[in-house]
Amino acid sequence: MAIVPKISDQDANPEARAVFDDIRATRNSDQINDFWRVLANDPPHAAAVWAQAKTVMAPGALDALTKELIYVAVSVANNCEYCIHTHTESARAKGMTVEQHNELMRVIALAATTNRIAIGYQIEPDERFRK
Amino acid sequence: MAIVPKISDQDANPEARAVFDDIRATRNSDQINDFWRVLANDPPHAAAVWAQAKTVMAPGALDALTKELIYVAVSVANNCEYCIHTHTESARAKGMTVEQHNELMRVIALAATTNRIAIGYQIEPDERFRK
Amino acid sequence: MAIVPKISDQDANPEARAVFDDIRATRNSDQINDFWRVLANDPPHAAAVWAQAKTVMAPGALDALTKELIYVAVSVANNCEYCIHTHTESARAKGMTVEQHNELMRVIALAATTNRIAIGYQIEPDERFRK
Amino acid sequence: MAIVPKISDQDANPEARAVFDDIRATRNSDQINDFWRVLANDPPHAAAVWAQAKTVMAPGALDALTKELIYVAVSVANNCEYCIHTHTESARAKGMTVEQHNELMRVIALAATTNRIAIGYQIEPDERFRK
Amino acid sequence: MAIVPKISDQDANPEARAVFDDIRATRNSDQINDFWRVLANDPPHAAAVWAQAKTVMAPGALDALTKELIYVAVSVANNCEYCIHTHTESARAKGMTVEQHNELMRVIALAATTNRIAIGYQIEPDERFRK
Amino acid sequence: MAIVPKISDQDANPEARAVFDDIRATRNSDQINDFWRVLANDPPHAAAVWAQAKTVMAPGALDALTKELIYVAVSVANNCEYCIHTHTESARAKGMTVEQHNELMRVIALAATTNRIAIGYQIEPDERFRK
Repeated sequence: MAIVPKISDQDANPEARAVFDDIRATRNSDQINDFWRVLANDPPHAAAVWAQAKTVMAPGALDALTKELIYVAVSVANNCEYCIHTHTESARAKGMTVEQHNELMRVIALAATTNRIAIGYQIEPDERFRK
Repeated sequence: MAIVPKISDQDANPEARAVFDDIRATRNSDQINDFWRVLANDPPHAAAVWAQAKTVMAPGALDALTKELIYVAVSVANNCEYCIHTHTESARAKGMTVEQHNELMRVIALAATTNRIAIGYQIEPDERFRK
Repeated sequence: MAIVPKISDQDANPEARAVFDDIRATRNSDQINDFWRVLANDPPHAAAVWAQAKTVMAPGALDALTKELIYVAVSVANNCEYCIHTHTESARAKGMTVEQHNELMRVIALAATTNRIAIGYQIEPDERFRK
Repeated sequence: MAIVPKISDQDANPEARAVFDDIRATRNSDQINDFWRVLANDPPHAAAVWAQAKTVMAPGALDALTKELIYVAVSVANNCEYCIHTHTESARAKGMTVEQHNELMRVIALAATTNRIAIGYQIEPDERFRK
Repeated sequence: MAIVPKISDQDANPEARAVFDDIRATRNSDQINDFWRVLANDPPHAAAVWAQAKTVMAPGALDALTKELIYVAVSVANNCEYCIHTHTESARAKGMTVEQHNELMRVIALAATTNRIAIGYQIEPDERFRK
Repeated sequence: MAIVPKISDQDANPEARAVFDDIRATRNSDQINDFWRVLANDPPHAAAVWAQAKTVMAPGALDALTKELIYVAVSVANNCEYCIHTHTESARAKGMTVEQHNELMRVIALAATTNRIAIGYQIEPDERFRK
């Protein structure tokens, strides 16, 4: 159970309600994920995070699906159950195929292994990366 | 300093040398990164990791650059200095632009924030993700 | 489900029972959290951890609430579900207001972002911190 | 060595320069830490992170020193060398005494231990925290 | 709930079925853990991971129980709920006593503390470990 | 550079000096690692950690080498450069062979991979582990 309650549309103050409204408009969906309903307990924080998320996740030099794949990868490495569910779903909604999901997981699993090998043997960055 | 020595071409046993040769052939470069020279202290492990890396990082349902971006994202989340340097370089070699690098870092930074918010408030996966 | 059973007052051996008794006396409450009932499977470990916790968390140069805020921050960064619930509750019991909780979460979220940016770009400590 | 160059005052574009100027004005110091000089390679990201940092770290329901202690705690848990140096220095500048630093480290060390015990034995949140 | 379905024996393709069969033969048990039923959604990944696991976990210079203890230690540090349950069970099946489990947990808890102290004070490797 | 100075034998207060003396007597060596010289800035913390370390690392139900292997595994997972160097050296001093070191690293690398797969697919503990 979350440590603070979920804020309903009715209970949201104007700042939080504006975040909900913009999420709905941006995503063209009536759905508000619990992440935002919980963070709405701190409306200025919700507004700041949403503004950043809206900007960062918009297609740019990287397309929207690639950004979601990166988001899932970070969330798996950070072990965030909530974020893994939500962003895997988002990736699927943006077109991630089963095979792409499998390849994403293979890269995450490979990197986990080589990260630990490099750390365990304390391999220094190659000469060309050092001053 | 690495905990075990780097294995030169001359000191590599046949199994390790075969890994070095295949890396050179696959990457079409004479360069062998220190990761492999260190892991060559355990030739069967080097062979197994290289076989997995060669398969996983080959273009498939995800292109080679996208895989490198995911690799960098995991390495940053796992705080692997060696891997961040090497795979950022690989991503650049596969065409990552400055703006793509910036967007990669923005997604990593955003996910780090939202991961911690979800964890800190103990937000449970939305109803639709639960049994 | 925990991997080992919870130890009831009756089943506790004298060393574990002494820990329970001292927790009750120190906290002026009859409540024994499951953390201690589980750790009581290894009474000497329970005794050592409790002795350390009692000393470390007592008000000193830092007041008791500040220590709880730090405890929550570490527990969120380490993703410890059990500890987040328990120490957020302890912080509230020691007077943490809703606004303080929100500010705690904002600092945790900000630090998560800047930590990853510093790591992702491999920013070295400023010259004045280096030998 | 950082993966991207540090941006000098002269090389900063107007958006990055505005960040540098506001850091100098806010902190009443001419010093710009390398974090900002590196992040200035992506001026909009620098501006967004600085805006968030300036807001979040200002004294509020928690005083400025307490916020720095929390920042250090998260940075230690996340193992961010850069951030540990910088924010320990900031905490000292805001009045952290040697004894407070020691107590901060004791709480971080204690939480690290109890976090791992709770995780290792898979202790579930006490009944009162569950639905 | 897992993000992808568990694959039954009937639904497994030949590559996945061969993994299931080899797990049964190697472990001399009819039980297939959900890890493998989920990973069987990506049969080549399942085959690669199983091949590696079978090789790595076989008794060698380290006995099978010692390998399981190490596996549990890593899984606790990485906070993998699934892996902690499974590998603690495996360790017990290979003879881990209650007292050995307790000592394992004590070492994990101690290392968590000293790791954070070394990081928090930024203690550099002793002179003899540096170039 | 460490954030606080190393305490020499001459500068150590009696409580810190007693820790140094007991380390020398216990290890039968004149060497005091920098970890203890840094932690000696907080003598009660040094005394508490050393008392715990001396007890926990003594041979018991697990032998001294096995405990060092577990210590290294945790330190690699936690990415503690200082601790990886020191405890790999300790493991060697207690008889760890090259082949045992290789197998340790293979288990750490394998667990890193399977931990991330279990987390990435959100595989729940098998039915028998659930209430």
